[in-house]
Amino acid sequence: MTARRVVAFGGGHGLSASLRALRHCAPELDLDITAVVTVGDDGGSSGRLRAERGGLPPGDLRQALVALAGDHPATRRSAGLFQHRFAAVPVGVPETGATEPGPAAGDGPDRDGAARRGTDGASAGTDGLTGHAVGNLVLCGLMELLGDPVAALEHAGAMLGAVGRVLPMSRQPVGIEARVRGADPAAPDEVRTVSGQHQVAVTTGRVESLRLTPSAPPACAEAIEAIRAADWLIFGPGSWYTSVLPHLLVPQLADAIVSTSARRLVTLNLAAEKETLGLSVADHLAALHWYLPELKVDLVLADAKAVGDPEPVERAAESLGARLVLAPVAVVDGTPRHDPAALGAALVPVLGADR
Amino acid sequence: MTARRVVAFGGGHGLSASLRALRHCAPELDLDITAVVTVGDDGGSSGRLRAERGGLPPGDLRQALVALAGDHPATRRSAGLFQHRFAAVPVGVPETGATEPGPAAGDGPDRDGAARRGTDGASAGTDGLTGHAVGNLVLCGLMELLGDPVAALEHAGAMLGAVGRVLPMSRQPVGIEARVRGADPAAPDEVRTVSGQHQVAVTTGRVESLRLTPSAPPACAEAIEAIRAADWLIFGPGSWYTSVLPHLLVPQLADAIVSTSARRLVTLNLAAEKETLGLSVADHLAALHWYLPELKVDLVLADAKAVGDPEPVERAAESLGARLVLAPVAVVDGTPRHDPAALGAALVPVLGADR
Repeated sequence: MTARRVVAFGGGHGLSASLRALRHCAPELDLDITAVVTVGDDGGSSGRLRAERGGLPPGDLRQALVALAGDHPATRRSAGLFQHRFAAVPVGVPETGATEPGPAAGDGPDRDGAARRGTDGASAGTDGLTGHAVGNLVLCGLMELLGDPVAALEHAGAMLGAVGRVLPMSRQPVGIEARVRGADPAAPDEVRTVSGQHQVAVTTGRVESLRLTPSAPPACAEAIEAIRAADWLIFGPGSWYTSVLPHLLVPQLADAIVSTSARRLVTLNLAAEKETLGLSVADHLAALHWYLPELKVDLVLADAKAVGDPEPVERAAESLGARLVLAPVAVVDGTPRHDPAALGAALVPVLGADR
Repeated sequence: MTARRVVAFGGGHGLSASLRALRHCAPELDLDITAVVTVGDDGGSSGRLRAERGGLPPGDLRQALVALAGDHPATRRSAGLFQHRFAAVPVGVPETGATEPGPAAGDGPDRDGAARRGTDGASAGTDGLTGHAVGNLVLCGLMELLGDPVAALEHAGAMLGAVGRVLPMSRQPVGIEARVRGADPAAPDEVRTVSGQHQVAVTTGRVESLRLTPSAPPACAEAIEAIRAADWLIFGPGSWYTSVLPHLLVPQLADAIVSTSARRLVTLNLAAEKETLGLSVADHLAALHWYLPELKVDLVLADAKAVGDPEPVERAAESLGARLVLAPVAVVDGTPRHDPAALGAALVPVLGADR
């Protein structure tokens, strides 16, 4: 049996959940995993590195690498190092302007979990490292040293004994812009342009349209190749506007996605996020159709509890050509997070089925 | 044949040269290499990390690790990553206050090669990363994550496929202070206290006495064990006051060094440095005796050209109980640097000899 080639699209915690689930299937199904990751982040540690040093924002790439890190104690420790975030420095003055939140509870938009601060350098209680994850600095250094993000990610993957490959959707960082109705709660009917992935992710208005800047960034050639050679493409879970849809807005990726012979699976989110408040589960599928009308989907995987009444979701899935599969894929503590083992168990019969 | 256990003491470029030379002998002699590294650096990237984040200054530890990095292309690339130094950021304003010198030409005192700047954060053309070597940030992160510098160094060594072990002389950073005559060139007879390894390393006055602060730092227990189990101890080459002598000033290390059954080798420098201007080759050996009178040495290895008239050096060696061995160990381009292959070739018959 040759390996089944799976390409998972996304960014942040959602993509991590998808990759961890795929790892659970990998021994049974002999999967060859490729992650294709958004490069639009402009907040936190990634945003600072991107603004100050150029190159790709590393946070989403780092999270995908860590999700694929090998099980050996040494590579687990290296993964812990990549995730280690430099805290505020221990000085005798109260810390201001920097906080150190843990990972977001859901597959949420504040996905790099970083201290949000300006680029104006150190202030009391912080130094130049405060808020940076070590893995972001390693990736930034590797991209500078090797001059190519794909080579940098290949080396970082080797450092982590990664059981799969991580690619950026583009070798160039992109901007994300949205037209948002009610971005200002005081003017609920006004439509404004919201710029930057972080601002889009945290807007509580209704996103009416989304675009990348530049509008047609060049796709990573290795990502196109992986899509063409794939048996399965997996979209979601994740922040719909800022992690899932951006791939469909890169013309060369969209072409490859619609023209490949691979089957296509959409994994739906467990709860709405700020950026998707007011968007029903069916609306999430409609958004895929809106931004890439040629997209045909084979299967939509969702959590029965999160879906509620399945009928409108089934209809939305059918309009994409897809069958709806319901399975218990959430963690049992009630927070809206995918359980990698449960999601993996749900994926095994799906990915393992013959055509 | 069991492995010959060699412990090399030092810091910076001098220790790197010693370790690289030992690697050249390792296949022939089956060496088990341990580096014991000074922890007094307070300049450059290391000094900033030490001042801002606490913990050991990582630069000398990083250089020793890199000198021992494995020959596999992937570990060579990781070693290159550890050495990669973040340059000034590409902004449109002239860079001030930060420079990016290459590695020092000799076994010199500016050994971390880092931009020297204050700890007051970013200024035009720099960000919080400017001047830091990636490996320093990795070591700093590992020490924070694992809570112990020896565990951090073990993991970093594994990341680099290191063919030996790197230990700090103490788990606590130390200060270095010197009484220096003529530190101010305008007052050549005045004796002043010069504080900090970096200031001592660059003083052009004459160092009259040297001490650590605290005066009796606890030795790293694993370093004591390594000394006790060793077949050979190797001192130098390196900055005499700031890399070689500090080990002798740690009481528990000094005890282990004089009481072990290991043989002892001193490798002399090829040229005087700022801190040792006016010190003859024989004076270097006399300084070892001054700071640790009980120290007996078996062999002194020196470059014939650098020594000139061997007689006073032979006499100084004899006063330590040592025989002088002359060999061509410098690079051929005339700069005062040890050639690792030549130094290794000179070490093979020395370390390989039976008692």
